[in-house]
Amino acid sequence: MSFEFGRHLHITIFGQSHAKAIGVVMDGLPAGEMIDFSAVESFMSRRAPGKNVLTTERNEPDFPVILSGICNDRTCGAPVCMMIENQDPRPKDYVAIQDIPRPMHADYPAYIKSGGYNDIRGGGPYSGRMTAPLCLAGAVCLQLLANRGIKIAAHIASVADVQDQLFDPVAVDASQMDSLLSRNFPVLNEKAGEEMRERIQAAKLDQDSVGGVIEAAAIGFPAGYGDPMFDGLENRLAQVLFGIPAVKGLEFGAGFSSTKMRGSEHNDPFYFSETGEIRTRTNHHGGILGGISTGMPIILRVAFKPTPSIGKEQDSVSFSRKENVKLTIQGRHDPCVVLRAVPVVEAAIAVVLLDYLL
Amino acid sequence: MSFEFGRHLHITIFGQSHAKAIGVVMDGLPAGEMIDFSAVESFMSRRAPGKNVLTTERNEPDFPVILSGICNDRTCGAPVCMMIENQDPRPKDYVAIQDIPRPMHADYPAYIKSGGYNDIRGGGPYSGRMTAPLCLAGAVCLQLLANRGIKIAAHIASVADVQDQLFDPVAVDASQMDSLLSRNFPVLNEKAGEEMRERIQAAKLDQDSVGGVIEAAAIGFPAGYGDPMFDGLENRLAQVLFGIPAVKGLEFGAGFSSTKMRGSEHNDPFYFSETGEIRTRTNHHGGILGGISTGMPIILRVAFKPTPSIGKEQDSVSFSRKENVKLTIQGRHDPCVVLRAVPVVEAAIAVVLLDYLL
Amino acid sequence: MSFEFGRHLHITIFGQSHAKAIGVVMDGLPAGEMIDFSAVESFMSRRAPGKNVLTTERNEPDFPVILSGICNDRTCGAPVCMMIENQDPRPKDYVAIQDIPRPMHADYPAYIKSGGYNDIRGGGPYSGRMTAPLCLAGAVCLQLLANRGIKIAAHIASVADVQDQLFDPVAVDASQMDSLLSRNFPVLNEKAGEEMRERIQAAKLDQDSVGGVIEAAAIGFPAGYGDPMFDGLENRLAQVLFGIPAVKGLEFGAGFSSTKMRGSEHNDPFYFSETGEIRTRTNHHGGILGGISTGMPIILRVAFKPTPSIGKEQDSVSFSRKENVKLTIQGRHDPCVVLRAVPVVEAAIAVVLLDYLL
Amino acid sequence: MSFEFGRHLHITIFGQSHAKAIGVVMDGLPAGEMIDFSAVESFMSRRAPGKNVLTTERNEPDFPVILSGICNDRTCGAPVCMMIENQDPRPKDYVAIQDIPRPMHADYPAYIKSGGYNDIRGGGPYSGRMTAPLCLAGAVCLQLLANRGIKIAAHIASVADVQDQLFDPVAVDASQMDSLLSRNFPVLNEKAGEEMRERIQAAKLDQDSVGGVIEAAAIGFPAGYGDPMFDGLENRLAQVLFGIPAVKGLEFGAGFSSTKMRGSEHNDPFYFSETGEIRTRTNHHGGILGGISTGMPIILRVAFKPTPSIGKEQDSVSFSRKENVKLTIQGRHDPCVVLRAVPVVEAAIAVVLLDYLL
Repeated sequence: MSFEFGRHLHITIFGQSHAKAIGVVMDGLPAGEMIDFSAVESFMSRRAPGKNVLTTERNEPDFPVILSGICNDRTCGAPVCMMIENQDPRPKDYVAIQDIPRPMHADYPAYIKSGGYNDIRGGGPYSGRMTAPLCLAGAVCLQLLANRGIKIAAHIASVADVQDQLFDPVAVDASQMDSLLSRNFPVLNEKAGEEMRERIQAAKLDQDSVGGVIEAAAIGFPAGYGDPMFDGLENRLAQVLFGIPAVKGLEFGAGFSSTKMRGSEHNDPFYFSETGEIRTRTNHHGGILGGISTGMPIILRVAFKPTPSIGKEQDSVSFSRKENVKLTIQGRHDPCVVLRAVPVVEAAIAVVLLDYLL
Repeated sequence: MSFEFGRHLHITIFGQSHAKAIGVVMDGLPAGEMIDFSAVESFMSRRAPGKNVLTTERNEPDFPVILSGICNDRTCGAPVCMMIENQDPRPKDYVAIQDIPRPMHADYPAYIKSGGYNDIRGGGPYSGRMTAPLCLAGAVCLQLLANRGIKIAAHIASVADVQDQLFDPVAVDASQMDSLLSRNFPVLNEKAGEEMRERIQAAKLDQDSVGGVIEAAAIGFPAGYGDPMFDGLENRLAQVLFGIPAVKGLEFGAGFSSTKMRGSEHNDPFYFSETGEIRTRTNHHGGILGGISTGMPIILRVAFKPTPSIGKEQDSVSFSRKENVKLTIQGRHDPCVVLRAVPVVEAAIAVVLLDYLL
Repeated sequence: MSFEFGRHLHITIFGQSHAKAIGVVMDGLPAGEMIDFSAVESFMSRRAPGKNVLTTERNEPDFPVILSGICNDRTCGAPVCMMIENQDPRPKDYVAIQDIPRPMHADYPAYIKSGGYNDIRGGGPYSGRMTAPLCLAGAVCLQLLANRGIKIAAHIASVADVQDQLFDPVAVDASQMDSLLSRNFPVLNEKAGEEMRERIQAAKLDQDSVGGVIEAAAIGFPAGYGDPMFDGLENRLAQVLFGIPAVKGLEFGAGFSSTKMRGSEHNDPFYFSETGEIRTRTNHHGGILGGISTGMPIILRVAFKPTPSIGKEQDSVSFSRKENVKLTIQGRHDPCVVLRAVPVVEAAIAVVLLDYLL
Repeated sequence: MSFEFGRHLHITIFGQSHAKAIGVVMDGLPAGEMIDFSAVESFMSRRAPGKNVLTTERNEPDFPVILSGICNDRTCGAPVCMMIENQDPRPKDYVAIQDIPRPMHADYPAYIKSGGYNDIRGGGPYSGRMTAPLCLAGAVCLQLLANRGIKIAAHIASVADVQDQLFDPVAVDASQMDSLLSRNFPVLNEKAGEEMRERIQAAKLDQDSVGGVIEAAAIGFPAGYGDPMFDGLENRLAQVLFGIPAVKGLEFGAGFSSTKMRGSEHNDPFYFSETGEIRTRTNHHGGILGGISTGMPIILRVAFKPTPSIGKEQDSVSFSRKENVKLTIQGRHDPCVVLRAVPVVEAAIAVVLLDYLL
């Protein structure tokens, strides 16, 4: 496996869903940065389950133990290691799946890859739980970015067929972002949010699940960063965002919808702003041209498939018996991963953006 | 910049649109592999412009000079370096843009990044021309993949609002792929292809451009490959595919449409095939679960924005005069990059898939 | 800083001498490998201080807590994380050096590098203590190597002016290596060992220190591994071995002494052994030619400078007062690091050799 | 193989001794740096053979063709690719060795590694000729370093048993270095140089060869650079220096001789210089502590084994006949590689030092 990424800021994640602990090592943070760990904990609580009826009922207070890298609340240059001890594992829930791969989970390819030695408990290292260490890293990076005038926020752009309003890509501002960050169910259009919750609740009642899209914006990121051809902003954001379990699609700016436009419609005209900065009148490019930041808001959307764990009976196979079997998954699962994934997407963007600035 | 990627197979690209040469170094190919360079040239001719009225009229016979790494038509273990000497540059076409960034091109952020020292001629290293070395590498990799029973092919899934039929993701087969590889305008539905050509021709007449989507499939890739969390198949395919100029979106399997499905509809049931292999009855997962191959066809779609270079007058700025100006781009440009990008997408997939097998 | 290395097997170390914990993440171990953690603990006890009067009197039982990556005593494919909680820190010993860099330590350049925010306690992340996580990783790798028929052992080749006998480079064998691994003071010539201990004891009484050389051998490593020009065996062994604090020199095979030989004397003639293997009659090349293993024993020697921490008064500077000052270092220190570094050298070799085989 | 290295400045070398060309790609150079290619050619001529009777008589005017990355004599941000076309190959000289590995060359392990498909002509990619592209890269880096006040020079510290005077490690200065750079046979003590030439000439007459040591110094490199634990200055210099064929040993500062000193003798005392800088009164540490630069001159010594190609008959094996055979190597070879390796060592240091500053 490969739980590392980053050039100047190397992130290494470790753990499995039911290991003794999960955690992250961050190597390359500059020394002397003040870290507010109560803000880290606040960020983690945004990802925490059990907040409301729409998320899994497991109780996971994912507050980290700081193992290294911090002296007197500041980075000291040594790698920062943060660990979350796992609790409340209930391994018995997972005994049935040792031999029967859950549809749409990594169980089957992981079995092949590991020769059957993979840790199946709770999805092992393929679990959505592995996004908790990513969020720890992101929460630290967000503070360093904030000190440099950069802000990141995301909202639920759709759940099933219900669409939230999208960001106005030339007019995302700090107050709008702050407002999103403080909400339990972050949407721009509250009425859309209500309908989304209904869809999720309906799926839950049906022992089923739904997918959705998260839209994120970053503002204040200066022009000129990105290393094309293969380490441009889009390349690296993609590398990390596709590391979030259940992500199946990604687009920047106008994305797939740009394919239906003509160039004359899609091209963003340059102009000098009143303060003498070069800006674009529209922002179909999503703040990135040729893999390099333009100084305009960075806009992207991430597609999450419906939660694969559903209560309904499904078709699968038995490895040992070499025959087709029926499978009913026990356990507690989010009927829609999108809600808890909002801070994860923000965290993924944060670790990538900070890397360029170091 | 960062023109390298790959773990076991390191690919390094060099050049600019109007440099003396462009090329690629491939380090990590196993020794003793027979390479058919006439097949490499055939592959390159699929990307070549000037084939018909829909592509730019420049004449670029992109056949490589083999500088190193090949002995008696076989790889010898040393890095394979292939070079294409640039011809027919017509640098005078680009004088105007030294001071005035072309909308939707990398000119502006590249200017910031390089302090004004970037090579602006033909887009310099940000040019679509840099996909030629990627294709050289891909053409070599495709041969090694073919020897291992793996085949890759792509088609134009849409241009503007015209949709081609999509692959049946459980029934992509070698003959269908071979048929696509031999076509000048690769589509599954010939009637859709005709309409697409009309859209492109219409845009050209309007001095405008259109975008589109390419869908690709890979078959024969065995289950169990991929290194999640950050070097899974999706992560690495994304890293390379977003290196192709004009790409703004990417999805695997059902992708964005999965977000509108319920889990019970989206989940692909496992079953034992008649030959005793574990397969899925549907393939919404696009051959990848948890970042690891499942042995089902790998299916992905890539969104290309409309060609930014259009003949119409556009708004831009003058760096030196610090004022808003009008810009009319001269030169010869593809009204739709999608056609020539089909082999580029195949090449990008090839270099990634082979890397996992080495 | 950069606490990572490795290609297929990524090693990431974290911690500081007086952080809450130190540890290591190993990503890339194959799944299904049985790990005997009592053997890991035995290996760690070879590095432990406090064994005898020649080493520091601190008590550090460096037994790891396994945080992740192990299921039922086997690797499961997820990153293996092992942590050692720090004890017995006595931070007060180090207050004086916050402002006054200790000669020959990293204090001064680390102060410059970190802008004064480095963790000075016990040398922080520059401490010899950071070799404990390297030994954890090495102890795991040694087990996988042993399963593949590869053995590594080292001895103290010199302390001050006292020389041990060197390995006969064509005749290192498993029993000789086992004998070294079981000794408290591993030397080939017991009489030389006694003299070395006298030199160390004498230095200690003088509140001084001495340096020395460690020679290591690896047998059973097959021919054909190594990736020149820059990831050959010598390159990578060097990269890791120079990561051990106090190492200032490294040579392979005949090393520096080869510079005084003629080619006709130095060249190792090839021959077919009785069992039909290609071997060399002498082994001045130390098992590596062109960066690639030849199948002969790998032989290397590592030079360790005298322990920089000595009890004698020394000249230094005060950062704050910007003047020259006298410094007397308190605390407990090894008068010779060589003894405890023997397993560290073995561990460093183990992580590198295993990486090539994965 | 692995012909790449570097973090911020990625160097990729390609070619074989008798390929169509050899060359180097440098990715990561800042844009806008003026490069004087006549200075590059002057540097290359220092490495060129055929200068005098002591080096091989082949004629190799290794002047590069600039393929990319340079606009108007300045770097433009795109990867710089430089190529040297091979001439005068005389492949017939090497027919005999296809089946019979030359002692002390990479032939045998390369044969195993590549399954017999390696390019044997002139040593293929294992040839000392591959240091020419390294010198091209180094010659460019030396110019950027010079602009930043950093100078590198080396001299022949020994040949066989003849020792040159060593640098006074606290008093290396620019004029001394310039003087070395301008000499055909760079030594500090001219009388020692004469004796060295006699040793080389004598070896040549005997159809034999000799080894030697090169000492290098870098001045002006600022304090605070280096990324321990595994990317410190010593680690990375070692990684690259061991990539030079024939290198078997490396030491920094007092190196192996430090092992015979006591700490009180070896420790370099800090003091404030008259200009208010922190310096050390002695420089046993060779300008590097804990892997980080101290601002003192960086001093290192590299051991080169005797040239393995000698005219005398030697013992080897026949792969095909599986029997011991006699081998007499034809062709023209340097009786001592040390002379031509002096600029190679400087180049290797240059690429590493510049990487830290980018």
